[in-house]
Amino acid sequence: MSEMIKIFDTTLRDGEQSPGASMNIEEKIKIAKQLEKLGVDIIEAGFAASSPGDFEAIERISEVVKSSTICSLCRAIDKDILAAANALKKANSKRIHTFIATSPIHMEYKLKMKPNEVIKRAVNSIAYAKSLVDDVQFSCEDASRSDIGFLKEILAAAIEAGANTLNLPDTVGYVLPSEMGKIIKEISDFVGTRATLSVHCHNDLGLAVVNSIYGIQNGARQVECTINGLGERAGNTALEEVVMILKTRKDLFEGFDNRIKTQEIYPSSKLVADITGIKPQPNKAIVGQNAFAHESGIHQDGMLKNPETYEIMKPSDIGIIQANTLVLGKHSGRAAFKDKIKVLGFSVSEEELNAAFERFKILCDSKKQIFDDDIRAILNEETTHIPQIFSLELTQISANSSGKYCAALSIKRDGIEYSDCALGNGSVDSILKSIDRITGMRGNLKDYQVEALSSGKDAIAKVVVKVEFEEGKPAIIGHGIDIDTMNATAKAYICALNSYLSMKDLITDKTGTMCL
Amino acid sequence: MSEMIKIFDTTLRDGEQSPGASMNIEEKIKIAKQLEKLGVDIIEAGFAASSPGDFEAIERISEVVKSSTICSLCRAIDKDILAAANALKKANSKRIHTFIATSPIHMEYKLKMKPNEVIKRAVNSIAYAKSLVDDVQFSCEDASRSDIGFLKEILAAAIEAGANTLNLPDTVGYVLPSEMGKIIKEISDFVGTRATLSVHCHNDLGLAVVNSIYGIQNGARQVECTINGLGERAGNTALEEVVMILKTRKDLFEGFDNRIKTQEIYPSSKLVADITGIKPQPNKAIVGQNAFAHESGIHQDGMLKNPETYEIMKPSDIGIIQANTLVLGKHSGRAAFKDKIKVLGFSVSEEELNAAFERFKILCDSKKQIFDDDIRAILNEETTHIPQIFSLELTQISANSSGKYCAALSIKRDGIEYSDCALGNGSVDSILKSIDRITGMRGNLKDYQVEALSSGKDAIAKVVVKVEFEEGKPAIIGHGIDIDTMNATAKAYICALNSYLSMKDLITDKTGTMCL
Repeated sequence: MSEMIKIFDTTLRDGEQSPGASMNIEEKIKIAKQLEKLGVDIIEAGFAASSPGDFEAIERISEVVKSSTICSLCRAIDKDILAAANALKKANSKRIHTFIATSPIHMEYKLKMKPNEVIKRAVNSIAYAKSLVDDVQFSCEDASRSDIGFLKEILAAAIEAGANTLNLPDTVGYVLPSEMGKIIKEISDFVGTRATLSVHCHNDLGLAVVNSIYGIQNGARQVECTINGLGERAGNTALEEVVMILKTRKDLFEGFDNRIKTQEIYPSSKLVADITGIKPQPNKAIVGQNAFAHESGIHQDGMLKNPETYEIMKPSDIGIIQANTLVLGKHSGRAAFKDKIKVLGFSVSEEELNAAFERFKILCDSKKQIFDDDIRAILNEETTHIPQIFSLELTQISANSSGKYCAALSIKRDGIEYSDCALGNGSVDSILKSIDRITGMRGNLKDYQVEALSSGKDAIAKVVVKVEFEEGKPAIIGHGIDIDTMNATAKAYICALNSYLSMKDLITDKTGTMCL
Repeated sequence: MSEMIKIFDTTLRDGEQSPGASMNIEEKIKIAKQLEKLGVDIIEAGFAASSPGDFEAIERISEVVKSSTICSLCRAIDKDILAAANALKKANSKRIHTFIATSPIHMEYKLKMKPNEVIKRAVNSIAYAKSLVDDVQFSCEDASRSDIGFLKEILAAAIEAGANTLNLPDTVGYVLPSEMGKIIKEISDFVGTRATLSVHCHNDLGLAVVNSIYGIQNGARQVECTINGLGERAGNTALEEVVMILKTRKDLFEGFDNRIKTQEIYPSSKLVADITGIKPQPNKAIVGQNAFAHESGIHQDGMLKNPETYEIMKPSDIGIIQANTLVLGKHSGRAAFKDKIKVLGFSVSEEELNAAFERFKILCDSKKQIFDDDIRAILNEETTHIPQIFSLELTQISANSSGKYCAALSIKRDGIEYSDCALGNGSVDSILKSIDRITGMRGNLKDYQVEALSSGKDAIAKVVVKVEFEEGKPAIIGHGIDIDTMNATAKAYICALNSYLSMKDLITDKTGTMCL
């Protein structure tokens, strides 16, 4: 029988720590559901003690996700551990993940603690966690720069205290695969079957994935990763790359298996990219838009003669159906639309379907060809339930000859329509200023991106904005899609505003509060 | 004395093969000059026989770049080799790079040749190349899936025929580092000092960089790479990652050295991203915008106590000066502007300086704070000499209540102003349609991206479009920057049009004609 490699996803915790990736609770729930569908063994849903928003996200994910273990991170501090246990209460299967730094530099400068104090703190925390849940994971922060003798000492104590999983992070992304392999081998030989060994790698030198692979080859049976390699600095181990290496090079990993449904990789990647606005680069392995050559309409001579000349994976392996195929048009009925949604891998409520179909019909009026990505965008908007506090009714823009723009907008709140206009340097500036005027809010635009969802001059525009509504608090992401870029801009800004107002009291800036 | 690792950059050849990355000759020259500044040993400037555009690019780069070796790729065909030699005529130091596939699957299905015919073809080509230039490189396409005995046979014959450098590509990005190490070790032991061994890796499984590193550790003394890992499918080995691994882990690579000036890494990455419109993802190692945590305004507790707790490289190592610092304003003079340009690493002619300063002054009128990235954008526009066949004079946009937009534009050609207007679904559609109407051209918009260059509602918008003017030919990239998104859109489309018209006869679709 083959050995199982557990896939531990931390997109919602370590991934969310990356600048500009903070998500709304509704968005986190959506990602968690997709991770469950993907077959992730453990979902690290947040860091309960870090903010009310994280607590609530873990709590709600624990309610809706039933086939993955839900996990919360906590420092080796009793109040953190208690918060984690409380947030996880409703989970089917729950895990508390506590950590403390073990490298000389971290113990001396960050913790200002002696090694024996660190061991004591770890043991107490693990024991306390174990009194609250059955499944406890312990991580040695900066393990790769820790003394191996000390690691053995603290891990032995952790096992004694009840830890089931022992995680060794390469916190600063410093080691080469051979070094990672050596550390894991030595610790694996030492730990034996007393606990599951895990790796958590960072990508500062571009080596997170390969270090995780060498971890597996030397005894690790859990890999911590994120979708698209999202994470602080250069990110974490990309789930999709680890899983596809194991699959594509099955010949080298014959004794191993995992529960990931690779056909859900592409939908998961798309969803995380759409929600965070952080897109994999076109040449990103596995999920980049160019990763499969023939995806881009390239028909290589060799490919035609024998696909294996240049192809080691099939797009369908990761759930790419057929990119941007012309699918539906003005005369497509509700049944055809429903079918298409199913093929694209969405499962929607009747209500969501109706709303999406209505938007689809409106779109058909102004756009001849509707592509897969257009449908996907409509559905993603309809199935993320950010409360519609404000909604856009009308945009009107004009420019005078001096280059000043005037935007006149109408926005509804509680059924009442409010209108005003503002001048600006350029169209975007004028639109956002008039929204501020109407809503009485004042947002600071931190990031603005537009992309065309398909090709053609009348392609749907997808706008992603990141807006800071309070100084020092994380920027809020907003999305807007529309056939007109300026309308999409207004929608995206209003979406950020709605998202902010709906979770205002839950937001704190967590970036940099901890690291693994 | 330490052994030199040669850095062979193929951004302009294998990088340009990636979908949507085809560049104008002027842009290629600009990149080549930057690569020279970066300290690249060999610049693969193109594939001379593939198109008149490639031929001319190699020829012109040979004229202006003097301290790097210039190289052209060619199939193992006499006419390819002759074209390469002709294009390289004016180079100070030149190399011909010829290749043929050596794996059973490629020989049987793609080449339809027997192994002994393949050897004969390779030998003839190398000998012919050697009669034209001193420096000849030979590559075994799909080396990693070739029979090692056959590799030895063909490489021995190649050495005999005069090849100085032998390159082993992992064409399909299939091998793990341990396998790559093993192949290189065996071939290195076999070749000895008779030739320089080189690795060329692809990133399909995310392993290109680490495979190159294992190549070096096992005897390769040349690494083929691209800036930002640009390239077909999941791309090639990222130059910046290989170089920074060698530097950061100097302890493991003590005996090795290379000529790369790491401070030129960031400017090189920026330039290639700006020109191709293919941006590294924020969590890309080394050059992603989040790669250095404190770059994003994060001040971690640990970082403040001791930077080494979380930092293994300094941003200044790769030439990041200080991100998006407020630099200049309305009252800054020409001298201050000139100083700033120097700090940003640009060297410009007096004429370029004047033009850039003028644009800077205009910008100051509508924007209070001018950031580094704003200046960089102005300079990049001023120093890329795409002929201004058409130029934008005026844009005026209005929307009617039904959602139709009307754009009225004036465009100059040869001193005469032409004006017209068009209706469209949304602002972008109306602008592009009116440009088509005025110029009599008809472009198909394949890609449209907008990003804000800095933060704030009045940030400069940078628009990148990719437009197909002739079916089946590669899309042409156009850039536009402006304080107004819609003006930037018009400029970008006109830029693509100018670029297309200036090199219309030189363009052929090369994508997929060859692979390494």
